[in-house]
Amino acid sequence: MAKESGKKWVLMVTAQTPTNIAVIKYWGKRDEKLILPINDSISVTLDPSHLCTTTSVAVSPDFTHDRMWLNGKEISLSGGRYQNCLRELRARASEVEDEEKGIKITKKDWEKLHVHVASYNNFPTAAGLASSAAGFACLVFSLAKLMNVKEDQSKLSAIARQGSGSACRSLYGGFVKWIMGKEKDGSDSVAVQLADENHWDDLVIIIAVVSSRQKETSSTSGMLETVETSMLIQHRAKEVVPKRIIQMEEAIKNRDFPSFARLSCADSNQFHAVCLDTSPPIFYMNDTSHRIISCVEKWNHFEGTPQVAYTFDAGPNAVLISHNRETAALLLQRLLFHFPPNSNTDLNRYLSQSGICTDSNVLICINV
Amino acid sequence: MAKESGKKWVLMVTAQTPTNIAVIKYWGKRDEKLILPINDSISVTLDPSHLCTTTSVAVSPDFTHDRMWLNGKEISLSGGRYQNCLRELRARASEVEDEEKGIKITKKDWEKLHVHVASYNNFPTAAGLASSAAGFACLVFSLAKLMNVKEDQSKLSAIARQGSGSACRSLYGGFVKWIMGKEKDGSDSVAVQLADENHWDDLVIIIAVVSSRQKETSSTSGMLETVETSMLIQHRAKEVVPKRIIQMEEAIKNRDFPSFARLSCADSNQFHAVCLDTSPPIFYMNDTSHRIISCVEKWNHFEGTPQVAYTFDAGPNAVLISHNRETAALLLQRLLFHFPPNSNTDLNRYLSQSGICTDSNVLICINV
Repeated sequence: MAKESGKKWVLMVTAQTPTNIAVIKYWGKRDEKLILPINDSISVTLDPSHLCTTTSVAVSPDFTHDRMWLNGKEISLSGGRYQNCLRELRARASEVEDEEKGIKITKKDWEKLHVHVASYNNFPTAAGLASSAAGFACLVFSLAKLMNVKEDQSKLSAIARQGSGSACRSLYGGFVKWIMGKEKDGSDSVAVQLADENHWDDLVIIIAVVSSRQKETSSTSGMLETVETSMLIQHRAKEVVPKRIIQMEEAIKNRDFPSFARLSCADSNQFHAVCLDTSPPIFYMNDTSHRIISCVEKWNHFEGTPQVAYTFDAGPNAVLISHNRETAALLLQRLLFHFPPNSNTDLNRYLSQSGICTDSNVLICINV
Repeated sequence: MAKESGKKWVLMVTAQTPTNIAVIKYWGKRDEKLILPINDSISVTLDPSHLCTTTSVAVSPDFTHDRMWLNGKEISLSGGRYQNCLRELRARASEVEDEEKGIKITKKDWEKLHVHVASYNNFPTAAGLASSAAGFACLVFSLAKLMNVKEDQSKLSAIARQGSGSACRSLYGGFVKWIMGKEKDGSDSVAVQLADENHWDDLVIIIAVVSSRQKETSSTSGMLETVETSMLIQHRAKEVVPKRIIQMEEAIKNRDFPSFARLSCADSNQFHAVCLDTSPPIFYMNDTSHRIISCVEKWNHFEGTPQVAYTFDAGPNAVLISHNRETAALLLQRLLFHFPPNSNTDLNRYLSQSGICTDSNVLICINV
C-alpha cells in the first residue's frame, strides 16, 4: 500500500462545482439504475462563486470505511447512487505519487483504500435548486482528481450521471447539453458543452427564493410516477422536446434572447404540466410562483419582446434570466414592487448579494 | 300580428336549468363561431334545486327591442352568441295561441316580435362554476317553450351549444355526453343522455367554494390560446380523451365508483396541465385547490380505493363527488378540519345548506 506503511498520511483534494439550471428540462428516465433519460436536455451552468458545492475528498490508510458528511452531518454512502460512482471511479483509478510526502498509491491499492468526503452546499438542499446536481458533479470531479482518473470530462459526466442525472451537466461551464444516448449501457448518455461561459456573458440570472423548505415530492420519485402515469409525458419526450432542442441550440448559438426566453418559459411550463398530469398530481409551483410568472409575462407582453425568461425546477423558486444588466436592474425593481419586504409575515426578503456585479452569468439570490 | 292589436298583452314563460360539471373535460374548439369542440365530453347535471339559473322570457307587441337582464343588470344581446341562439330559435318558432288571453302569434309574427329576458344565477357568475352553461341552456329552453319550437332536446342542445359549448349538456339530467360530431355545420355536435338522474342516485356532490371572484382568463379566450399554443392539447384531444370517454361511459353504466373517480381526477388534472402548457400559461387552481387535492388523494390512498373524486373547472373551486352519504359526511368533517372556519381572514366558510339531504345528486356548497 502506501510506500511508508505505518506512517500516517492523508491525501486530500478540494473542488468547487456550480449548480446548473435546465432550460430544456430533464424529466423521466428510461433506465432507473443507470439514470438514462427519455429526452435530451440543455442547461446553463451558474457562476461557481454563487450557488455551488464545495467538496473535500481524502484518502488515508487509517480510514476503515468510506464515509461522507453533507453540510457537516454524516450521511450514508450505502445507496446505489453513491456506490455506482465510487465503483466506477475506483475501477479507473491510477497510480498516485507524492514524493515530498512520501506517498505512493498503486492502481491496485485503490481497491482497498477508503475515502472520506466532506461536502457543503452554499444554498438550501433539496429545495429544487439542483443541489444534487452540483453535489454529485463535485464528488465525481474531486474523487477523479484524488484517484488520478485519466478520463476526459465527457466520460466523467457519464459517471456523475449515475449519481444524479443532471449532475453530468455541471461538469462544464456555459451552456451544456445532456445527450440522452441510445446505448443500453448508457455509455453514450453524456454531457457536451454547447458554448463556454464567455459566449453569452451579458445574461444575468436572478433566483427568487420563494421557499427554502425541502420539497414534498423528490425529483426521483416524481419523475418515476410521471413516466408511469402521465398520458402526455411520452408525447412530450418524443415529439416536443427533440424540436425544442434544435431550436434552443440555435438560439444559444445566435445569442437570440427572444427565442431563448420563449423556449425556456414554454419548456418550464410543460414540465410542470406533465407533473400535474401525473397521478397523484405533483405541484412544485405555488401561488407566489404563479404571481412571478404573471408579472414576467405581462412585462414581456407589454414590451413586445421578451425581457426576462423564467424557469422553475422541482420547487417553487423562480430562476429568472435577464437579457442584460439593465433588464436585471428593472426586474429587481419590479420584484421589490410586487413582493415588497415584510408585506406578509411568510414573505421576508433580503438581497443576499450586495448588488449586480459584472461577472458573466451573474447570480443574484433574493427571497420573495 | 296579435289578434287584438292595440290591446296590450305579455306572454311569459319561466324555466329553471341546473348547471353541469364535466368529468371528462371540454377544452378547445375546432370552430369558434359554431362552437364545435375538439373532443367529446361527459358531465353530471346537478340537482336543479341547487346551482341553477332561473330565466323568465316574455314577448309583447310593446317591446321594441330584444333586451336581457342578468342578475338584475341589463346586458347587451348584441354578441354573436346571443344572436345565434335567437336567430336559430326564431327560425323554428311556431304559431302560439292563448284563447283565454285572446293572443294569437303566427309563425311569421315571430320575425318582428321582440323578447325580454330576465335571468338569475343562484351562484357566482364566471367563477368557474359553469354559470354560462346553465344560463344559455335556460335561455334556449325557455325561449323554445315561449316560441313553441317543436324540436327534440337534442336539436335544442345544438342551439344552446352555439351560446356556450357546455350549455348543450345542461338540457338533460343525470349523466350527459356531448358528442363532438364530424359535420362542418355542427348539426351532429349534440348532447345525449347516458343515464338519467335516478341511475346512480347515491352520489353526493360537495362544492368547496375557494373563491367567488371572476376568473382572470375566460374559458373562451383560454381555450383558444391553448389550441393555438399548447404542444400537448392535440395529443390529449385525439389520443387520450377518446379512450377515457369509453372508460367513463362504462364506469357510469356499471356505477363503478373507483373507475369513475380515477378518470374524473385524471381528466381534471390533464385539463389544468394543458392550461399550464399554454403560452402564456393559464392558472385556474391556486394553493387552496392544491391542498384540497392533496387531502383527497391522501385519503383515497389511505383507504386503498377512491372515496371521493375531485374535478376543477376554469376556476379554483373544487367539485367533490362522494361515493355516498356516509363518505360525504366524512369528507365534510375532513374539510372542516383542514380548512377550519376563520383560520385565515381570507378563508371564511359557512354551510350554505343546512345539511346533507337525500335527494339524488345532492349538492352542498361550502366556502373554504
